[in-house]
Amino acid sequence: MKTGKFITIDGVEGAGKSTQIKFICDYLQTKGINVILTREPGGTDLGEKIRELLLSTQTQSMHNDSELLLMFAARNEHIHHKIMPALERGNWVLSDRFTDASYAYQGGGRGLDIERIEQLEHWVLGDFAPDMTLLLDIPVEQGMSRVESRGEKDRIELEKMDFFQRVRQAYIDRSKKYPNRIKLIDSSKEREHTSQQIQQILDSL
Amino acid sequence: MKTGKFITIDGVEGAGKSTQIKFICDYLQTKGINVILTREPGGTDLGEKIRELLLSTQTQSMHNDSELLLMFAARNEHIHHKIMPALERGNWVLSDRFTDASYAYQGGGRGLDIERIEQLEHWVLGDFAPDMTLLLDIPVEQGMSRVESRGEKDRIELEKMDFFQRVRQAYIDRSKKYPNRIKLIDSSKEREHTSQQIQQILDSL
Repeated sequence: MKTGKFITIDGVEGAGKSTQIKFICDYLQTKGINVILTREPGGTDLGEKIRELLLSTQTQSMHNDSELLLMFAARNEHIHHKIMPALERGNWVLSDRFTDASYAYQGGGRGLDIERIEQLEHWVLGDFAPDMTLLLDIPVEQGMSRVESRGEKDRIELEKMDFFQRVRQAYIDRSKKYPNRIKLIDSSKEREHTSQQIQQILDSL
Repeated sequence: MKTGKFITIDGVEGAGKSTQIKFICDYLQTKGINVILTREPGGTDLGEKIRELLLSTQTQSMHNDSELLLMFAARNEHIHHKIMPALERGNWVLSDRFTDASYAYQGGGRGLDIERIEQLEHWVLGDFAPDMTLLLDIPVEQGMSRVESRGEKDRIELEKMDFFQRVRQAYIDRSKKYPNRIKLIDSSKEREHTSQQIQQILDSL
């Protein structure tokens, strides 16, 4: 029986997820909430090995459906071997990316049929879903200029600007489709501005 | 447009696949047929890396659905980046294991719901299927005694005898369900006896 809350944070490259994740963990701890931080793809031993396959620049020619199947294989392991057990112990779980990223990157970015993604989501997750998703939104050019300064890019970061424009649009579409779960947060201003919006949303939980 | 024939060979551990694969390749070559040999899980660069994850004894605790998703991720890559292009060039393709193995090992062996495997098969393969499947059948004890002599076992070979009994039964059930495609071959006698049966089937193609 799930008793903890499952929160995911998502958004395009350079939207400031890492900074805000630190803020969220610190803020929840001041409220006495024990939160486990995890990420996708990854989060388990097997999931991190799948992540290496997905992000390695050695595997550029991967078929789009293979990419999606690997994402969901890692996600399945993540749910059953990390997220669900933690929620059942009463912990909160914060995941850096989750299923919305598959709709944004493989759906919006790669152009995979949304209905096919839904079929795989249903196969793997059934009716399991985050309690709350924090979607950090930033114009793609602004986000990418932050990523540029980080150094070497992975296989997905190497995609072109119009790919990330489609990713951003798919995220925005998701937030309109699921307004109760997905909270769209303007992340284009200073980090404190973003944190304030997140704090208000967390307080509402 | 597919012009070559796609043949798969399957069966429990120790049924003599490797020996008969050599026979089939040699026999088809004497008939002037250019056959490409491949295997599952594997057959592509990415697929072989997924194979390492699947068979490594370091990943014993993998969730059953993750195993099936990884099998189909490798299979998707295999179909799109190796099998289909070869068939379209007019080559024949012989694969050491294919989708029937997922029904036998993950379905029969692990007890996954057949309908769920069918959903994933349909998602990945659509209506793509082998032209002919050679199913080598041997009592499990006899097959395993051949495997024992090979040395170190992989993650799946480490399963117990009743696991392989269920695998064998699932293979037999598949051959009854698809009698036109799957040819059940008694592989319990000497290798020449098995090869003769295979030769007759190949001649009928």
